[in-house]
Amino acid sequence: MTKPLRLGIARLGTVGIGVIKIIQNKKSLLEERTGRKILISAITAKSKTKKRGMDLSSYHWEKDPISLANRDDIDVFIELIGGHDGVAKEAVEVAINKGKDVVTANKALLAHHGHELALKAEKSGSILRFEAAVAGGIPVIKSLTEGLAGNSINRIIGVMNGTCNYILTRMESSGLSYEEVFSEANKLGYLEADPNLDIGGIDAAHKLSILSSIAFGTEVNFDGVELDGIDKITINDIHQAADMGFRIKLLGVSQMTSIGLEQRMSPCLVPSTSPLGQLEGGTNMVVIEGDQVGQIMLRGAGAGEGPTASAVLSDVADLARGIRLATFGQPAITLKKTASSKSQTPAPYYLRMLLHDEPGALAKITKILSQFNVSIDRMRQYGHEDENAPVLIVTHEIKHEDLMKAIQELPNTKVLKAQPVAIRVEAV
Amino acid sequence: MTKPLRLGIARLGTVGIGVIKIIQNKKSLLEERTGRKILISAITAKSKTKKRGMDLSSYHWEKDPISLANRDDIDVFIELIGGHDGVAKEAVEVAINKGKDVVTANKALLAHHGHELALKAEKSGSILRFEAAVAGGIPVIKSLTEGLAGNSINRIIGVMNGTCNYILTRMESSGLSYEEVFSEANKLGYLEADPNLDIGGIDAAHKLSILSSIAFGTEVNFDGVELDGIDKITINDIHQAADMGFRIKLLGVSQMTSIGLEQRMSPCLVPSTSPLGQLEGGTNMVVIEGDQVGQIMLRGAGAGEGPTASAVLSDVADLARGIRLATFGQPAITLKKTASSKSQTPAPYYLRMLLHDEPGALAKITKILSQFNVSIDRMRQYGHEDENAPVLIVTHEIKHEDLMKAIQELPNTKVLKAQPVAIRVEAV
Repeated sequence: MTKPLRLGIARLGTVGIGVIKIIQNKKSLLEERTGRKILISAITAKSKTKKRGMDLSSYHWEKDPISLANRDDIDVFIELIGGHDGVAKEAVEVAINKGKDVVTANKALLAHHGHELALKAEKSGSILRFEAAVAGGIPVIKSLTEGLAGNSINRIIGVMNGTCNYILTRMESSGLSYEEVFSEANKLGYLEADPNLDIGGIDAAHKLSILSSIAFGTEVNFDGVELDGIDKITINDIHQAADMGFRIKLLGVSQMTSIGLEQRMSPCLVPSTSPLGQLEGGTNMVVIEGDQVGQIMLRGAGAGEGPTASAVLSDVADLARGIRLATFGQPAITLKKTASSKSQTPAPYYLRMLLHDEPGALAKITKILSQFNVSIDRMRQYGHEDENAPVLIVTHEIKHEDLMKAIQELPNTKVLKAQPVAIRVEAV
Repeated sequence: MTKPLRLGIARLGTVGIGVIKIIQNKKSLLEERTGRKILISAITAKSKTKKRGMDLSSYHWEKDPISLANRDDIDVFIELIGGHDGVAKEAVEVAINKGKDVVTANKALLAHHGHELALKAEKSGSILRFEAAVAGGIPVIKSLTEGLAGNSINRIIGVMNGTCNYILTRMESSGLSYEEVFSEANKLGYLEADPNLDIGGIDAAHKLSILSSIAFGTEVNFDGVELDGIDKITINDIHQAADMGFRIKLLGVSQMTSIGLEQRMSPCLVPSTSPLGQLEGGTNMVVIEGDQVGQIMLRGAGAGEGPTASAVLSDVADLARGIRLATFGQPAITLKKTASSKSQTPAPYYLRMLLHDEPGALAKITKILSQFNVSIDRMRQYGHEDENAPVLIVTHEIKHEDLMKAIQELPNTKVLKAQPVAIRVEAV
């Protein structure tokens, strides 16, 4: 008879409670599936006395995550603390140094210190797993690392921040402004304590950088993600994009180019009828393009107690079954450093401008655009009642660099009423 | 240094060639990812002399799959022969008895003999893997067995036969009849040698029965799948369904009910705008509903050289990495026998009838329907130029049993010109 797998769970927020519920309620199912008993040895949380609606009395209580990571009676340290520095990192390092396996939902930790932790884990013979760190309950880490192991990956595309997708789809359905929906989401508790983690695209970029490492065999390079949040998206952009058959999504895209790894996290237009275009609310989707498999799409809830706990349990079940994989799918020492390549891949762009309503204004704009090889596919001039003329352009496939040069030059026409907004159209 | 993993590949059809290409072209990638060299020791095929456009001279040639399975210099027997009896089964059994691991793409073999083979594999310490048997390159076996191990599964829904989906979507886009598109698909080589495997739903039902076993911890029960093919679907059904916002898909549904496992493979209506409704051509999708994770959707190519070889390589990489799982995710001895429960779950139905165009005909029909608790949600009577009146009904949620009784009674009205056709509307 195999020995039980003994867990230590650090922090009892939504996910921690979800994990404990599954382990309490599905004892025999988990044992049948993994061939081992899965037990909780010890737990820790900020408050010992807080009512949590469940019986925790049979678990040892530790005063802090470090002491928990140090305990001799745990095999797996489950880190649900969050934050890329401080106690989360320290406790994970203690666990690894003691040769314990670690399961974490902490994307920030992996995005910032994943490579360093992977090296340490390999040195001590520990396993570091993190299915819950990316796209909630969708088994994307497993699918990419194991299910597509025979593929060279061409591109990864993902909608991986449910809050941003909620805000964008709610703006569209309600007609409310970004500011109004933002404050609504805040009241509903959908936003991180630092909302910029969500709306600035940082949280989603953490996830993208983790997927990139596995997909392309490169060291995690979060700083190499070109970042742009959703806070400049107006309700007009959403409506005008819809008019032209598009929806706006905070899209992560990662692909290898001839000069390095291109990682972008930014609002993009995608066809309204595409699977990515149809995502509502907090739903996540990751699209993986492999040279053998073609395009695989994985869709599901990106957050929440059940989905995130499900992902944590996937890692725990793997460890119970004796599945032991290198952190990013290959030994950390073999991961390549890569130059980050900013938006090399050409694409069409959506360009929103507000012009003075005067004769020749548009001609001045199009002249500059054509000087910088920004050729126009479609253009619309919207009706208006004041002296401002809203103009909308979708370009042909162009280089981002050219577009940026053109945008820099445009103010010299003296016909702009505001800074132009450019949004990439991603082919999906 | 770990020893290389040595493969024996039985049959060199499209998939076999695809597997060899990956192993030849991605040597170092596979070694980096799995930590081992993956080598081909020996191969076999029907013809040794056939031109295959690649160098096979470094592999030992065996005269038949049985001899190949018997070789001492292979660790993994890769069965790409097909068919649920005969040499495929025999060779797999030989490999298992010799303690070798087996990777197969053979859904028929697993649907008919999966339980028996799993018992044998566990006895001899062999591993039997089959990612390629279900939904081509989509890592659905892995997602279900490992990624969702912390979930009790509520329902599985899948479009898992690309040929049927091609026929149904091609009928819609071309306006051609079932017979015309069938013969087109035949000419294009899309159909199995016995076309009834595709259009009769048998191939897809094989796949569904395999997923059911993993999802519900039950012995594979292919005979328990309630089967209905797509050959009775007319172009009118497709157009009329579209009129009402639906598309017709050959849908596999598996769910546990109070009286046993309900497995259905039959044409169903799904909303046109749903992810399942939007599948075109050969694309497959599997929807898994877990009590923790909610609804997960996995989409990708269901067949073809690259996708299927990708799935075979996923299993090979697992074995190279030392991942050793019970065939259906838990020891075969713990799998439960289950009574098969035919269509217990109530649903709305689409009902197509052709009536004599005479006063009171429709009243006679609706009277019978209401007698059997078949209540009508929507009804349409189509324009017609002869004495036949086409009538279309979508019912409220009803029991299949009641509908069948009503349909049996309907001919007694003497107003039917043809046997009514009923198609289930599946909530997705």
